[in-house]
Amino acid sequence: MPSHDDDLGYLDAASAFNLDQELMSNPGFCLEQLMELAGLSVAEAVYHVLPVVAPSKGEPSAIIAKNKILIVCGPGNNGGDGLVAARHLHHFGGAVTVVYPKNTSDQQPHYANLVQQCRDLHIPVLAEMPHDDDEVLGSYAVIVDAIFGFSFRGEPRPPFDAILRTIIRAAKGRAITVAVDVPSGWPVDGFDTTTTEHGQDPLYWMPDVLVSLTAPKLCAKQFTGRHFVGGRFLPPALAEKYQIRMPRYPGVQQVVEVTTTRTTTMCVDLKN
Amino acid sequence: MPSHDDDLGYLDAASAFNLDQELMSNPGFCLEQLMELAGLSVAEAVYHVLPVVAPSKGEPSAIIAKNKILIVCGPGNNGGDGLVAARHLHHFGGAVTVVYPKNTSDQQPHYANLVQQCRDLHIPVLAEMPHDDDEVLGSYAVIVDAIFGFSFRGEPRPPFDAILRTIIRAAKGRAITVAVDVPSGWPVDGFDTTTTEHGQDPLYWMPDVLVSLTAPKLCAKQFTGRHFVGGRFLPPALAEKYQIRMPRYPGVQQVVEVTTTRTTTMCVDLKN
Repeated sequence: MPSHDDDLGYLDAASAFNLDQELMSNPGFCLEQLMELAGLSVAEAVYHVLPVVAPSKGEPSAIIAKNKILIVCGPGNNGGDGLVAARHLHHFGGAVTVVYPKNTSDQQPHYANLVQQCRDLHIPVLAEMPHDDDEVLGSYAVIVDAIFGFSFRGEPRPPFDAILRTIIRAAKGRAITVAVDVPSGWPVDGFDTTTTEHGQDPLYWMPDVLVSLTAPKLCAKQFTGRHFVGGRFLPPALAEKYQIRMPRYPGVQQVVEVTTTRTTTMCVDLKN
Repeated sequence: MPSHDDDLGYLDAASAFNLDQELMSNPGFCLEQLMELAGLSVAEAVYHVLPVVAPSKGEPSAIIAKNKILIVCGPGNNGGDGLVAARHLHHFGGAVTVVYPKNTSDQQPHYANLVQQCRDLHIPVLAEMPHDDDEVLGSYAVIVDAIFGFSFRGEPRPPFDAILRTIIRAAKGRAITVAVDVPSGWPVDGFDTTTTEHGQDPLYWMPDVLVSLTAPKLCAKQFTGRHFVGGRFLPPALAEKYQIRMPRYPGVQQVVEVTTTRTTTMCVDLKN
């Protein structure tokens, strides 16, 4: 039986920050390690939701049929997870393009590594979004939103405000949209459900897929698409402290799909 | 069709060292990242060779039937790979014990992280081998040799000489023995096949399983057990430079079993 996401517990923004700090205390995990595992989780989730075709004779396994993947990376750790996912998805057979508008390798030296690792695989790393029309942006089977994570507050600033509007338009089209940890633009602790105007919020969009890292954030209660959870590294003491239950991961998977049964008026898929 | 290991190319000790340096050039991969992926490969291979039982009702997947795993970690990067594998195998459902006789976290600060990550999962980290009898050592379904890697030369020194003799005895018993990258004690560039005395070498033992990392080392030509290859990160320019062909990894696996058809007089499985 797959886990239900309501059984896992949710983290508010402050708890997510504190848990991250505790995971990376010394001795503990280092950023490079956690980012590698987080990005691998995202890549596995994207692989699972991609349309595949049956293997032809002589092929070792099913091949991704529509494998053009766009990964949009923000300036912080969410963007780092996206850069790692790009590399793994390339090795999984994806035709990956990265959009990384704000290079932050001066603040985070490891980001220079992650970008170089993509370039060494001939993954295009663009500073701007592809042209927003059917011929270009419409050709991607999957668009990954790795722009903002659990430390996002307030309003998206340029250039990410315009980029996010483009992704939201794409989410109404054919592309499968996958959000890393938090759908960018969403308040991490969730939209205020005591009013109804938020449904009109231009940043209120519904990705097809959410990949929660370590544990779902509070806003995931308002998500109605396919929900995956990654983070198969949480020590039991931290899980207990933050009242998180790890889902049951099958086999050697780094990510697991969990069930979601919410359908509230808050959670209208904008595609419908 | 699985790849044949002879098609992948082999690295001698000097090339393996140089390739490792190039992978970790700046910008490139950092040690923590590569070790995480290497250790995950080892853990996946161990999972694949473990005996499993069919899932019972209500269970998400097959459960490891005999899951007592001993991982013996040396003082260098091979041992670091073992420490990473221990953590992942715990999360995969293994009952893992680590033997780590020579703590080298003063030279490699990341090793303190890796040991702490094991302890946080309540994995016993012992300084000495369990008692070498059927009751104790004989109770492990799998013994992982993560003692020496591609930079090993000469003769094993204490305490690893005695530990290795214990593992070699265990390899003749019921335990499945898994060597990380190079069977410890083997010359990385292989035994001299122009003489026959090496078959009498007390360090000439045959693990059941070898997990080659990035590419098989030259001595793997003399290995006759189940052969896995991990390292799904190699950039094409380095593969070309070192004349390595990556095997075809199915799905999202970080490791793949390759075929081996050697049966020379050199390669007698000591169990037979």
